[in-house]
Amino acid sequence: MRYNYKHTVRVAYADTDQMGVVYYGNYARFFEVARTEALRSIGIRYADLERAGVMLPVTRMHVKYIRPALYDDLLTIEVIIPAIPDRMITFEYLLFNEKGEKLVEAETQLMFMDATSRKLIHAPESVVSCFKQLK
Amino acid sequence: MRYNYKHTVRVAYADTDQMGVVYYGNYARFFEVARTEALRSIGIRYADLERAGVMLPVTRMHVKYIRPALYDDLLTIEVIIPAIPDRMITFEYLLFNEKGEKLVEAETQLMFMDATSRKLIHAPESVVSCFKQLK
Amino acid sequence: MRYNYKHTVRVAYADTDQMGVVYYGNYARFFEVARTEALRSIGIRYADLERAGVMLPVTRMHVKYIRPALYDDLLTIEVIIPAIPDRMITFEYLLFNEKGEKLVEAETQLMFMDATSRKLIHAPESVVSCFKQLK
Amino acid sequence: MRYNYKHTVRVAYADTDQMGVVYYGNYARFFEVARTEALRSIGIRYADLERAGVMLPVTRMHVKYIRPALYDDLLTIEVIIPAIPDRMITFEYLLFNEKGEKLVEAETQLMFMDATSRKLIHAPESVVSCFKQLK
Repeated sequence: MRYNYKHTVRVAYADTDQMGVVYYGNYARFFEVARTEALRSIGIRYADLERAGVMLPVTRMHVKYIRPALYDDLLTIEVIIPAIPDRMITFEYLLFNEKGEKLVEAETQLMFMDATSRKLIHAPESVVSCFKQLK
Repeated sequence: MRYNYKHTVRVAYADTDQMGVVYYGNYARFFEVARTEALRSIGIRYADLERAGVMLPVTRMHVKYIRPALYDDLLTIEVIIPAIPDRMITFEYLLFNEKGEKLVEAETQLMFMDATSRKLIHAPESVVSCFKQLK
Repeated sequence: MRYNYKHTVRVAYADTDQMGVVYYGNYARFFEVARTEALRSIGIRYADLERAGVMLPVTRMHVKYIRPALYDDLLTIEVIIPAIPDRMITFEYLLFNEKGEKLVEAETQLMFMDATSRKLIHAPESVVSCFKQLK
Repeated sequence: MRYNYKHTVRVAYADTDQMGVVYYGNYARFFEVARTEALRSIGIRYADLERAGVMLPVTRMHVKYIRPALYDDLLTIEVIIPAIPDRMITFEYLLFNEKGEKLVEAETQLMFMDATSRKLIHAPESVVSCFKQLK
């Protein structure tokens, strides 16, 4: 299993800083939106997971900034889920601008957590089965 | 009763946008920090209020942008609480840079809300008494 | 002339705070995105304006928070431009959730500014004519 | 040469998300503020560097989230600059709460860039000499 999904986002003025580019900390929001939509595309709605008592805090993030994203750029974010999640779920991200230039490579690791005990848990069966049907 | 408090904040790169000034939406964070410190200065810790089941959502905000705040500016935020709170609490804000130029005038109104029922309530006695002792 | 435009945005986790709702300062980003798309819909690309030396800083913002926006809500933002801009341009905003409940009413005023002199100017002819053709 | 500096920041409501903890993307702002103050402490004001035509974009960021930072926590950020900068400058960060618990470990790499050509350059002599005098 290796799942690929593409999501596009428009860079807002709010995302920029006085260097005239997207502030390095604001990509985290793009990653979040892209992985949420990747999960939604295979039938997993993160808001439902939370309502069922499962949270997905980020445990690691690596970002490599290659070229700056600019205001009003329409970015394509390629999200890759390289493996069926167990206790952890990994997302890789590739950001491209409209010219097809690669801007950013990133990776985040998230853990499945019980909302009440705040302890590490296995991915719920409902989540795992969404991945298994992908082949 | 009319309470005045001054708080200083340093403008971060994160606060700026590509116009080279503080993004208009980022002043809300400055107001929040300044009013929290104003309350702390008279013995009210907002974190304790929330633990006691009282929340203070913002119901109105008015902002007048006069001159831009710039990166690395050390801003002085004058917070004014013009009246003892009842169901609502009003905060006024005046922002100045190090040259003493007025940059922003603003006002926010917040309501006392029960965290469980999410209904409007009166300010807790513990809050009101902190204001009464000020005179 | 009174121009109406609707734009939808999805609430991200990044937009929320620990009250479980959208942080009051984060609506400014929604307003920005919505007014940019409203302008784009009548042929005005803000990025082009800036490249031509015209900036549009916000001079006033009023926000009335009626009900909270929640994580993953798909918000509809109705943008109203009530008059042909001269030196100033006014945008009104109405935010609705998927149930059609009105969440927020807001208004921003922006000024046309020369990027070099940072002085107030008239709206460029190219901008005014886009509005005039609307009837 | 290995320079250590400590900076404290208070967690604002704006920094939190509906998980009741600091949003994973908002630590980048804390890192920025801490490294700016670390540089200021040895005589380097980033705002002056930019005025002199030198920019410091971030090229890499690694973050390991160990425990969550909470609203109103007074965080201590330990900044370590492990080597005299040449074309790149590395900052390491350790975040602790008031109980002394380690919350986050992170590292960023920034490059010295000419503001006009946007090309990689060597650290200016004025910057290097501030580090050399540290012994």
